[in-house]
Amino acid sequence: MIRGRFITLEGGEGVGKSTQLRALSEALAARSIEVVATREPGGSVGAEAIRTLLMEGSDDRWDARSEALLFAAARADHVARTIRPALARGAWVLCDRFVDSSRAYQGGGGGITDADILALHRFGSRGLLPDRTFLLTVRPDEAARRLAARGDRDRMGSKPADYQARLAARFAEMAATEPQRWRLIDADLPAADVTAAMLAELIEWLP
Amino acid sequence: MIRGRFITLEGGEGVGKSTQLRALSEALAARSIEVVATREPGGSVGAEAIRTLLMEGSDDRWDARSEALLFAAARADHVARTIRPALARGAWVLCDRFVDSSRAYQGGGGGITDADILALHRFGSRGLLPDRTFLLTVRPDEAARRLAARGDRDRMGSKPADYQARLAARFAEMAATEPQRWRLIDADLPAADVTAAMLAELIEWLP
Repeated sequence: MIRGRFITLEGGEGVGKSTQLRALSEALAARSIEVVATREPGGSVGAEAIRTLLMEGSDDRWDARSEALLFAAARADHVARTIRPALARGAWVLCDRFVDSSRAYQGGGGGITDADILALHRFGSRGLLPDRTFLLTVRPDEAARRLAARGDRDRMGSKPADYQARLAARFAEMAATEPQRWRLIDADLPAADVTAAMLAELIEWLP
Repeated sequence: MIRGRFITLEGGEGVGKSTQLRALSEALAARSIEVVATREPGGSVGAEAIRTLLMEGSDDRWDARSEALLFAAARADHVARTIRPALARGAWVLCDRFVDSSRAYQGGGGGITDADILALHRFGSRGLLPDRTFLLTVRPDEAARRLAARGDRDRMGSKPADYQARLAARFAEMAATEPQRWRLIDADLPAADVTAAMLAELIEWLP
C-alpha cells in the first residue's frame, strides 16, 4: 500500500480555507482518491474535547504557554488517531490548519519562539509535516469583508486588523523558508480557479 | 515581602498524601503562615477543566504523548494562576503531586523520557521546582490495603501491583539524585508522627 499524501491549507481568517478544503476534497474524490477532510484544533474525539477548552471562554482564559501546550496535545491526538492511520491505509488527508498555524499564532508572541512550537511538535507528533501546504492569501480589505459577513467571534477569530497583517507576514515568511513544501495561492481569484490552482500543484502525485 | 515556600507531597497511591496535606496545612496555619493547599492535576479553573479530560474515559483515551502535554498544560495554568501569585504574596503553597509525578508516571514509559517531561516543564512552567518535596513511602501491602479500602478506580489509580512497585522505585531514584530538595518520610508511622516528621524538615523556614 502506498502511503497517502498529507495536504494542509493555511492562512489568516476569511481567506476561504474551509470552502476550498471541501472543493479540493471533491476534486480528489472524483479521481478515485480516498480523502479524509479534517481540521485543527480537533479532528479526533480527544482533540475535539480539547478544542472546546481552547475556543470557549474569555480572551485571557489561557496564558500563552498553556494554550500552546493544549494545541500541541490536540494535534498529537489528531495525528495519532486520525491522520497517521489514514495515511497508512493510502488515504489522502486534507487538513484545515496544522502546526504552521500554531507557529503563526502562538509562536513569536508572548515570549514563545518558533523553535518552542517546533519542539512541542517533535515531542507530541514526532514532527509530522505535510507533503504540501497551501498558503491562501487575499487582499486585507477582502479578508475583512468576508469576516464581517460571517460575524466570526470565537476566541481565535476576533483580533484587530494589524494583528491579521502581522499574521499574514509570518505565514509568508514560513513559506519562503521552505519552498519545496509550500505553495502560495491567490485566493482573490474566483473559487473554481483557486481549487484548480491547488490541484495543479498536486499533479505529480495524482493517479 | 518574603516569597513563600513551595512544598510538594509525592508518592504512589494509598500513601496518605491528601490526609497529610491537610494535617501539614493546619500545622503551618497554626504558626500564622498563610497556606494555599492545592493538588495536581488541577488547582486552577483551567487546570481543573483539563483534569476532567485526564481523569474521565477509558484507559486508552489518550496516547502517552497527548497525556504528557495535557498534564504540562494543566500544570502551566496552575503555576501561572495559583502557585506563583500565592508565593509572590508570601503564602506557602502545599501541593499534592507536581512535576515529579509526571516524571514518575509519564516519563520513562511509552518512549517518553525524563528529559522530555523536564523540557515540557521548562517550557510550560519555566521550570518551577518546589523548595522541598516529601516522598511518602509505605510498605506495598499497606498501600494495597488502603487503596482497596477506598475503592479507587479512576484512570490514574487502577494499575496493578508491579506497576506500583516500579513507580515507587522511580520516585526513590529521583529523590536520591536531588537530596537537597527531597526528604523521605516513613508513612507507615501513625499519622501524627508523619506530620511531625515533615514539620521537622521545614524548621529552618518557620517564622
